[in-house]
Amino acid sequence: MRPTANDVAPIVEIDDRPPVIESGPPALSIAVLGAGYWGPYLVRNILGHEATDLRWVCDLNRERASRVAGRNPSIGITTDVADVLDDPSVDAVAVATPPGTHYELALRAIEAGKHVLVEKPLAVSMSEAESLVKAADHAGVVLMCDHTYCYTEQVRKIRSLVRNGDLGSIQFVDSVRINLGIVQRDADVFWDLAPHDVSILDFVLPEELRPLAVSAIGSDPIGAGRACVGYMSLQLADGLLAHVHVNWLSPVKMRTMIIGGSRRNLVWDDLDVRQPVALFDRGVEVEPLDPEEERSIRVSYRTGDMVAPALRQVEALHTAVGEFASAITEGRAPLTDGRSGLRVLAVLEAAQISLANGGAFIEIDGRS
Amino acid sequence: MRPTANDVAPIVEIDDRPPVIESGPPALSIAVLGAGYWGPYLVRNILGHEATDLRWVCDLNRERASRVAGRNPSIGITTDVADVLDDPSVDAVAVATPPGTHYELALRAIEAGKHVLVEKPLAVSMSEAESLVKAADHAGVVLMCDHTYCYTEQVRKIRSLVRNGDLGSIQFVDSVRINLGIVQRDADVFWDLAPHDVSILDFVLPEELRPLAVSAIGSDPIGAGRACVGYMSLQLADGLLAHVHVNWLSPVKMRTMIIGGSRRNLVWDDLDVRQPVALFDRGVEVEPLDPEEERSIRVSYRTGDMVAPALRQVEALHTAVGEFASAITEGRAPLTDGRSGLRVLAVLEAAQISLANGGAFIEIDGRS
Amino acid sequence: MRPTANDVAPIVEIDDRPPVIESGPPALSIAVLGAGYWGPYLVRNILGHEATDLRWVCDLNRERASRVAGRNPSIGITTDVADVLDDPSVDAVAVATPPGTHYELALRAIEAGKHVLVEKPLAVSMSEAESLVKAADHAGVVLMCDHTYCYTEQVRKIRSLVRNGDLGSIQFVDSVRINLGIVQRDADVFWDLAPHDVSILDFVLPEELRPLAVSAIGSDPIGAGRACVGYMSLQLADGLLAHVHVNWLSPVKMRTMIIGGSRRNLVWDDLDVRQPVALFDRGVEVEPLDPEEERSIRVSYRTGDMVAPALRQVEALHTAVGEFASAITEGRAPLTDGRSGLRVLAVLEAAQISLANGGAFIEIDGRS
Amino acid sequence: MRPTANDVAPIVEIDDRPPVIESGPPALSIAVLGAGYWGPYLVRNILGHEATDLRWVCDLNRERASRVAGRNPSIGITTDVADVLDDPSVDAVAVATPPGTHYELALRAIEAGKHVLVEKPLAVSMSEAESLVKAADHAGVVLMCDHTYCYTEQVRKIRSLVRNGDLGSIQFVDSVRINLGIVQRDADVFWDLAPHDVSILDFVLPEELRPLAVSAIGSDPIGAGRACVGYMSLQLADGLLAHVHVNWLSPVKMRTMIIGGSRRNLVWDDLDVRQPVALFDRGVEVEPLDPEEERSIRVSYRTGDMVAPALRQVEALHTAVGEFASAITEGRAPLTDGRSGLRVLAVLEAAQISLANGGAFIEIDGRS
Repeated sequence: MRPTANDVAPIVEIDDRPPVIESGPPALSIAVLGAGYWGPYLVRNILGHEATDLRWVCDLNRERASRVAGRNPSIGITTDVADVLDDPSVDAVAVATPPGTHYELALRAIEAGKHVLVEKPLAVSMSEAESLVKAADHAGVVLMCDHTYCYTEQVRKIRSLVRNGDLGSIQFVDSVRINLGIVQRDADVFWDLAPHDVSILDFVLPEELRPLAVSAIGSDPIGAGRACVGYMSLQLADGLLAHVHVNWLSPVKMRTMIIGGSRRNLVWDDLDVRQPVALFDRGVEVEPLDPEEERSIRVSYRTGDMVAPALRQVEALHTAVGEFASAITEGRAPLTDGRSGLRVLAVLEAAQISLANGGAFIEIDGRS
Repeated sequence: MRPTANDVAPIVEIDDRPPVIESGPPALSIAVLGAGYWGPYLVRNILGHEATDLRWVCDLNRERASRVAGRNPSIGITTDVADVLDDPSVDAVAVATPPGTHYELALRAIEAGKHVLVEKPLAVSMSEAESLVKAADHAGVVLMCDHTYCYTEQVRKIRSLVRNGDLGSIQFVDSVRINLGIVQRDADVFWDLAPHDVSILDFVLPEELRPLAVSAIGSDPIGAGRACVGYMSLQLADGLLAHVHVNWLSPVKMRTMIIGGSRRNLVWDDLDVRQPVALFDRGVEVEPLDPEEERSIRVSYRTGDMVAPALRQVEALHTAVGEFASAITEGRAPLTDGRSGLRVLAVLEAAQISLANGGAFIEIDGRS
Repeated sequence: MRPTANDVAPIVEIDDRPPVIESGPPALSIAVLGAGYWGPYLVRNILGHEATDLRWVCDLNRERASRVAGRNPSIGITTDVADVLDDPSVDAVAVATPPGTHYELALRAIEAGKHVLVEKPLAVSMSEAESLVKAADHAGVVLMCDHTYCYTEQVRKIRSLVRNGDLGSIQFVDSVRINLGIVQRDADVFWDLAPHDVSILDFVLPEELRPLAVSAIGSDPIGAGRACVGYMSLQLADGLLAHVHVNWLSPVKMRTMIIGGSRRNLVWDDLDVRQPVALFDRGVEVEPLDPEEERSIRVSYRTGDMVAPALRQVEALHTAVGEFASAITEGRAPLTDGRSGLRVLAVLEAAQISLANGGAFIEIDGRS
Repeated sequence: MRPTANDVAPIVEIDDRPPVIESGPPALSIAVLGAGYWGPYLVRNILGHEATDLRWVCDLNRERASRVAGRNPSIGITTDVADVLDDPSVDAVAVATPPGTHYELALRAIEAGKHVLVEKPLAVSMSEAESLVKAADHAGVVLMCDHTYCYTEQVRKIRSLVRNGDLGSIQFVDSVRINLGIVQRDADVFWDLAPHDVSILDFVLPEELRPLAVSAIGSDPIGAGRACVGYMSLQLADGLLAHVHVNWLSPVKMRTMIIGGSRRNLVWDDLDVRQPVALFDRGVEVEPLDPEEERSIRVSYRTGDMVAPALRQVEALHTAVGEFASAITEGRAPLTDGRSGLRVLAVLEAAQISLANGGAFIEIDGRS
């Protein structure tokens, strides 16, 4: 309910001036494949970004495509992907179709020389994903996986705090992503929810803390035929643990990630609209063991302030679309490139094997 | 950030079936005047409601009108309100222009025989508002004031709980609406924020508890030239009080209303997305005084459960548009008719006088 | 429920070493008058403070006094206050009897040459309180009013932040102290709860912001014979407002004080055990009006971090007992001396008059 | 900080009448062994319960014992446990010494014919615990393990809701017990914190849901020489999971248990003082699979009210002391008898083995 400006954007002055049009490179021409759940968000953000133009919306259901395009006559509507790929004015394609179709559509787009943004997951298997990565490398096009959470202001801030050393060395990560959720027809709770956690970890942690092995334990207490409650333990380097709790049956929604560090601890509560990211200047420290007194340890505790950094209010998908455009313009890999999508799948595939093996730790395939 | 259905709508099954088109009355044809802040919301909800069709968007800035209409060729764009009022196919007009223009535009629309929905406030003075009410009565058209908060599921639930007697007899109301807000150029904090509280009270409380007098105390600690911090005490019947705190300078946002009742107490926290409305089965009761022991009172306390009723997730403006359409079709006054807009202005004008008189209680004009 | 150290004091190492006894001045010998509600807390803290010794517990009910003293043979038990006042070894007296008896008991103690700590309120009228202040001045003894809240770590921190200029110039204060409370037999909700708010304001704000006038509006919706819901507006210098909401009928407990400042805003939520005091580096600023463009104002908004300072965990009454002892030893007025108790009563008496006069602002007696 | 009755006990009338002394059985005479961390709580609650009397406080440090006894001359002070066990007037012994001494002291007390209440853990190994259980059976005395959390009003309520079927069939349990905690010298985070979770599960779940196997994964990122971060997955019957997260390094304290049920879900947030236990009438249901359409499942969602039941405010240890006394008087096993202490140790020992084996599921010893 948004009756007045003061209810919508309490701390941001509304700016009625026309936007300054910077005369940058010509806008990138993009086609959206898939007008279902995610398509409309893509359409709105591609239309709303100065670096991008929308050329086509393609969906098997023409009426749906047309509705999503807002009956805008300058946007082409089609049910045939060939119309899109054969259009030389199209620079890039955004794939927002069901996961099972990502591989084929992305591959055809790559082979047609288009840059490709794929909704997560990149594909339904590592081998498919690897083929896409190789094909994009070969074609010299940008392949980006839309791990949208990574483009939120919160996660960008967390990445910068972690990578700048504000937290010191990382000690543990604990992530909880639970709610009363839709039991998916074609995915268990790991495949539905954990890609968020795994891609965020991939994004914020330094390379040397990429997960080495994973244990997954799940339960299907409602007889849905797939895990509805899941726990995933990721073995990082140096014996560190990252842990993920995903759950479709929780009566309360929680979206919490705690990152412990030697200098500071960070808590991200995505449902706390007032101060989602909090840095705690508190901690536990162990002083070096005196070799002569083997049994004694000296532990000290720090009690310090808590700081919640101010964050801008920007829609994540806007930032993601901008990153896609910049990567293309600058000829570089995007922050969440195909390889990151591949790494996420590597974790999920290993978790799947672990789940089938009673939670045994399974090494994560390091391809990529 | 809305990556998957499970993040957006955790407890509602997504329904992919085409909506059932009930063959009801033909859709009402509506024109929107004003494409600024509130107009786009109106446009979206008029387009999205099966009972209404959008015919025109009118704004002094043609480009803005066109953008808001989504470049939809079936919607007329004009900068001249006469185009709208002269169009016999237009049944109703929604006025979303600056408050100072409400009176003139609404009056012209009424005189053109159109039903009118006016964004709050109905007008900038009681006398203007009264003229609109009389004109609409005379023309036999529906005049509705868009007190949007009243159409939220929360406020509708509160109204039904209060009016059904679930709370028992009302004992007090305390409302807090504070945040770091935009210092308005043409309104103090009372005129900016308190209309929400006053219109909600008008909506939920029974007629016999309409405010009789008001005291307003304010402060302008930043030298803005108008009150930025305000307290309003409303005298209801039987010595009861309703109190409203509005504040543009609060570092934290609060939207809380407590309604005390003899049977139950209600707390509405509009920022609590999980359980905004809570009913407390607790209270204080005073047993009748024994006439022989004048000084003694017998007080007892009840400690009971708290219940947070489940609420649907419906956009308030959708419900408001539907109420406007229903009132027109059924030839009845809408829930927030012109008279309720007039009553809200009566409270605000009396508050303005009180503010200028050091907080003295000022009787509220009972016209309407 | 406190099963292990990790549940009780999560961030403080338990120290098993015997306390270091600093050879300071000999401990002050104190007698407690009144073993009812507040007495046991006093007894425990006087026993637990190295600067004080407990000599007597005096109560009309000998059994109660004995129980409160913990059947400790080194503490005298009596029902006769003369036993206490005639004991030359007693340095000081703590009065924790019903308010109506404070004046007489404190006066007798002062006249017996004892230093006196009085539970709030200092007395039941300004004139009584003034007599006590004068008597203590004349006798050369310390008179302290136990405004315990002022000795919490939270309020001490707030005082230091306000007085050090961390908030800039103060813009407003809003205090809420509501819960389902005991309807007192001999006090309305203002006299029961507002002394906390008023004494805290007296403690944290600089002298130049002492309240000049007060408006009080109340309501008794349950027929208790006294106000159960109350609102108090304090006029400070420069047109600033401090506002207090006290309420015995609220189903939810709230203890919140917001202090707006030109540099930072402070929010104290006494029920937030994790971060009760929060400093917001956000605000609204008005730039000087351009004399040529009278109607325009330039407002700018700051969005900054939030900081929750770390606070020690110390019992407030322990600190209060220490302040009493230090003031005696150092021959100085305590932080909450008799004059502060008198100022609090001046506000409450003026509020009482305002309440009887429909909320008219009443000047506060500046005696003291 | 507890300045007035209205701050301490907002919803409970203070009762000044002398307690009614019911002429029940003569009070049980108890001795407390150990005046360290837990002893003082025991002493206060034994003294404060009408069914129990305190005879002795025994500690190696006489001064500490004396201090804990409050210098009460009717309580014997000793450093020699034989004084206690040889005293024929002593009915029962409460053991609050370090865990490593529980076995020996409890066994001596049992052999002296005393009933025994042992602070958790019952002993440091299953075999010790089993010996105690057998010895108590043989001696015909009551052996109770003080799983104090089980005697909180919250856990008692949860037990009754679960066992009465209010939740329907149990679907999952997730427990989080994390904070910045003291790194124990003689225990890892599992042995320090998880006994609470495991004993609560033992208490609230029906017998047929006792854990069958456990997997434990831990990490020691600060070099403390023991796990400081731990995850424990308990395999219950029917493939159900209970999961426990314990952590000494979390900057935020959390104490949350979610119990999913087929009829209702329960969330217990021990840090929510206002409504710690909440019942959600929401859920997910799967309709029976149509054998002909193997791939389809029919899932439906329930959105209902939330209810937070009112809970009394009683100290858990008071209830525990009462249960100990009642069990002795009535000649029955207490709710948390030696066997429950044994079952808790069985889980912890299996977890320890799992931890040393990379998280492999280890069967839980069903002795008891």
